[in-house]
Amino acid sequence: MKATVLVRPKAGILDPQGDAVERALEHLGFAVSGARVGKVVDLEVNADDEAGAREQVERMCEQLLANPLIESYEIELHG
Amino acid sequence: MKATVLVRPKAGILDPQGDAVERALEHLGFAVSGARVGKVVDLEVNADDEAGAREQVERMCEQLLANPLIESYEIELHG
Repeated sequence: MKATVLVRPKAGILDPQGDAVERALEHLGFAVSGARVGKVVDLEVNADDEAGAREQVERMCEQLLANPLIESYEIELHG
Repeated sequence: MKATVLVRPKAGILDPQGDAVERALEHLGFAVSGARVGKVVDLEVNADDEAGAREQVERMCEQLLANPLIESYEIELHG
């Protein structure tokens, strides 16, 4: 089953990459605010059903994909 | 208007970060394949309507957020 994981800096956590992107976009003439940069991880997980896949991907997030102290994660499963 | 941009390495483009994530997950005992890592950018764009917002964010992607030679992008607009 295919999974997409979005990992983002939590609200209140400094995000220098987001700040840099925002300044660069403003420099290019765009009117933007609140830019935040995180990562997206796509992967194929070996699971029988959606519940099993979600449980596995949650463990991957807790153990490796995200730092739960400073990042939140969101899991999307596709077929 | 809030926008979320997903930037991913195109199919066929080497993704060493995805390979590293996959190996690390396997090392932790997960059965995964095809891991690919990209970035997610959330931002607030100043636009009157959805069409205007999308057009602006597309230009941001072409000019800064993505490298169109090796990365594809996907734009989601929220309210």
